[in-house]
Amino acid sequence: MRKKIFRTNDPHIQALARIVGEEAILFKKEDLIAYDCDGFTVHRHLPKAVVFPKNTEEVAAVVKYCHEHDLPFLARGAGTGLSGGAIPLNGEVVISLVRMKRLISVDLENRRAVVEPGFVNLKLTNSIANRGYYYAPDPSSQYCCTIGGNVAENAGGAHCLKYGVTTNHILGLEVVLPNGEVIEIGENGILDPLGYDLLGLLTGSEGTLGIVTKITVRILKNPEAKQTVLAYFDRVADASQAVSDIISAGMVPAALEMMDQTAIEAVEAAAFPVGHPNDIEALLLIEVDGISAGIDEQIEEILHICRKRNVREVKVAQNEQERAKWWANRKTGFGAMGAISPDYLVQDGVIPRSKLPEVLQQIEQISKKYGLRIANIFHAGDGNLHPLVLFNSEKPGETEKALAAGSECLQACAAVGGSITGEHGVGVEKKEEMRFIFTDDEITAQTNIRDVFNPKNLLNAGKLFPTPGRCVEVKKA
Amino acid sequence: MRKKIFRTNDPHIQALARIVGEEAILFKKEDLIAYDCDGFTVHRHLPKAVVFPKNTEEVAAVVKYCHEHDLPFLARGAGTGLSGGAIPLNGEVVISLVRMKRLISVDLENRRAVVEPGFVNLKLTNSIANRGYYYAPDPSSQYCCTIGGNVAENAGGAHCLKYGVTTNHILGLEVVLPNGEVIEIGENGILDPLGYDLLGLLTGSEGTLGIVTKITVRILKNPEAKQTVLAYFDRVADASQAVSDIISAGMVPAALEMMDQTAIEAVEAAAFPVGHPNDIEALLLIEVDGISAGIDEQIEEILHICRKRNVREVKVAQNEQERAKWWANRKTGFGAMGAISPDYLVQDGVIPRSKLPEVLQQIEQISKKYGLRIANIFHAGDGNLHPLVLFNSEKPGETEKALAAGSECLQACAAVGGSITGEHGVGVEKKEEMRFIFTDDEITAQTNIRDVFNPKNLLNAGKLFPTPGRCVEVKKA
Repeated sequence: MRKKIFRTNDPHIQALARIVGEEAILFKKEDLIAYDCDGFTVHRHLPKAVVFPKNTEEVAAVVKYCHEHDLPFLARGAGTGLSGGAIPLNGEVVISLVRMKRLISVDLENRRAVVEPGFVNLKLTNSIANRGYYYAPDPSSQYCCTIGGNVAENAGGAHCLKYGVTTNHILGLEVVLPNGEVIEIGENGILDPLGYDLLGLLTGSEGTLGIVTKITVRILKNPEAKQTVLAYFDRVADASQAVSDIISAGMVPAALEMMDQTAIEAVEAAAFPVGHPNDIEALLLIEVDGISAGIDEQIEEILHICRKRNVREVKVAQNEQERAKWWANRKTGFGAMGAISPDYLVQDGVIPRSKLPEVLQQIEQISKKYGLRIANIFHAGDGNLHPLVLFNSEKPGETEKALAAGSECLQACAAVGGSITGEHGVGVEKKEEMRFIFTDDEITAQTNIRDVFNPKNLLNAGKLFPTPGRCVEVKKA
Repeated sequence: MRKKIFRTNDPHIQALARIVGEEAILFKKEDLIAYDCDGFTVHRHLPKAVVFPKNTEEVAAVVKYCHEHDLPFLARGAGTGLSGGAIPLNGEVVISLVRMKRLISVDLENRRAVVEPGFVNLKLTNSIANRGYYYAPDPSSQYCCTIGGNVAENAGGAHCLKYGVTTNHILGLEVVLPNGEVIEIGENGILDPLGYDLLGLLTGSEGTLGIVTKITVRILKNPEAKQTVLAYFDRVADASQAVSDIISAGMVPAALEMMDQTAIEAVEAAAFPVGHPNDIEALLLIEVDGISAGIDEQIEEILHICRKRNVREVKVAQNEQERAKWWANRKTGFGAMGAISPDYLVQDGVIPRSKLPEVLQQIEQISKKYGLRIANIFHAGDGNLHPLVLFNSEKPGETEKALAAGSECLQACAAVGGSITGEHGVGVEKKEEMRFIFTDDEITAQTNIRDVFNPKNLLNAGKLFPTPGRCVEVKKA
């Protein structure tokens, strides 16, 4: 942080500065602009201040101060979230956790590591790779997103088909409650949590129940072997059927990704082109890992299934370099949209796998209805779709159209028994769409839990749940 | 149920009978005795009545009646629980779910089935086995325990090392809340639950947050191949080291079970003897499953590890019959203690795998201290120990000694960073031992959640959490 002269008459800013130090607080408008949104850029709001605590005690002291003085507050990691969970809608005091970025300990024998919330996801794998271990959850933003943020959003990634999402890898948490109390939850990776599953409750609670200040994660042994297949299909229906066939055959690939034609156009125009044909309807990127024995036979079976489903071309990565190239191409996915459209909106629906062809057709119709292109990149194995609505925010009304088209995509997912978010969270973005899934009673069951932890609703208010009464009918006079 | 003349002056019994029908309520002492405890027989208490509703509406109506008339109540499945979760400590109205035992639907394509709570665990696998599918959680009582009870206790089983416990297989629940409201939670198996993870919260909440009336479970494809290894070790330390080596090699066996000498003596004296030698310190039962390719190589590696760790004898099951015999022997485990001791108390501690030899030694010392034999049967791969304290309840004071020895075993687990229950739940049995793990603040964070769901605390009161104030010091006069 830059050293500057500290001058303010605001007693709250002065008090917060006494807790974290004058060099660890921002409060001038020009400094605050970078914190007015996260990866969901449609809504923006300036925070009151941003503080950078360096340990749990400082977080707890800031929270306690806010609690006692009725100041709204929220926690922020790297700000890569895609649903607006870190936007200071109410002029919050933003508690940035980027200085709390230590790898506290690694216990290889019991397969666990302890990190601070600001520790970057990919750094964990990088720190233990030479000893043959890795951390499984791998969101596309893993090179910069923080594990604290991953816990808040229960982040997924390309490999969650086999390895599960963040909640499956969290063994323990230290949490600052909204009144400033500090508790520890989780008991070192016990399968059946003791008492209520607070660990599961906190993970994915989108920063509305507490602020995580220490995280014990599960680490995994590197798989002995890994093979990756790339398959090009003329028809999306064949690609979908191949996905079903692979799962039905009893295989659980580490990853099973699909991209449609528009998505392929974008990733080929972006930083890591592979040379995919531009006239296929879909490609599959399939990765199998595990012990060496049997990997080749699995790959043979996958190739066989792809051929049976009329694949145009299918190939196995010949070396780690080729494999890395394919993944780099896939992982630029969302950002790559910038190469073919000024703006894009990522959606994050989930459907039963068997509904893939049907929902993709509906998305096609939504695209036509709004006159906006929609690219599809998705974790096909999980039924987790990412429709990317392409638009131009400079054109009047197009942002609204894109938002409406995105919401209709989610409605289509909900209608077939799916969900409106697979891994990006609800945040600000999808809070009204919660009504596609939940009744009022079911939402109340959830907000009641929030109120237990967060009775003053000062912590990250206005997220995750629909605005009460917004759908209430106006009474006749 | 027997048809009998219905005669009572109790207005509550009359009202409950109007809801469920006169033939579906028990209220006479001689009928109630069978419901005074579950698989944890140390505490007993008669219920006020037992009702047998046949559908969700009747459950909701009974609950509503109890709620409005301040009658304590609780739900009961097959009564096989080992921690006393279904004991009517407060003279509860017991809501038996045994009549709600339908398999409602099976959806093979999306790998899910919907069952009523009284549906017996093993029946699900039996219903779909001929189509090549099964339900993974397999507690030893699976031939009679209900899936509703499994949800309440988050039941485990021998195969949870690879496949996880019940919570990993529950996709959705219909729940009657303690005020009689009915909600649905879970969204069809989405990896990242929408909003808070109520599904995770309810699963394993030991019947204190609501009564589950419908359950959507994940079903799995039968593994293509399965191989089972039995290994006899002269020294328990070698067996423990072999467990570590197998996990370190990057394998995840479907099961990795250990029995010590006393346990072996018991299972050999019970219904399914295998002919294990009586002078070994430990045996391992190891099962590997998956696609055929590679299974043989994994088995070779396991045999190699066992030999490296001085195994006396190691063999691979030659056919399904031999495999089934080994498992039947293992699964009689707890009950088998009856063959060598009039009474036994099952404990259920969890430890980091690396602490196995150390904790086994401590258990040995506890055994000597109390002069009671302790057998150990455990899911070694998970670090989930089941010390079985053998005693004779006819001998004055021996029950108390056994309870104290069991509690000390749990303390030893907690002290090395483990937990006091892996899969049996806390119930009545271990509620005071919760203090080995949680601070008062941490317990309050949990009871606050209970109070949201269950504000009158009529549903299954006196379970799961320590009695408040029991540890408060008496003030001096």
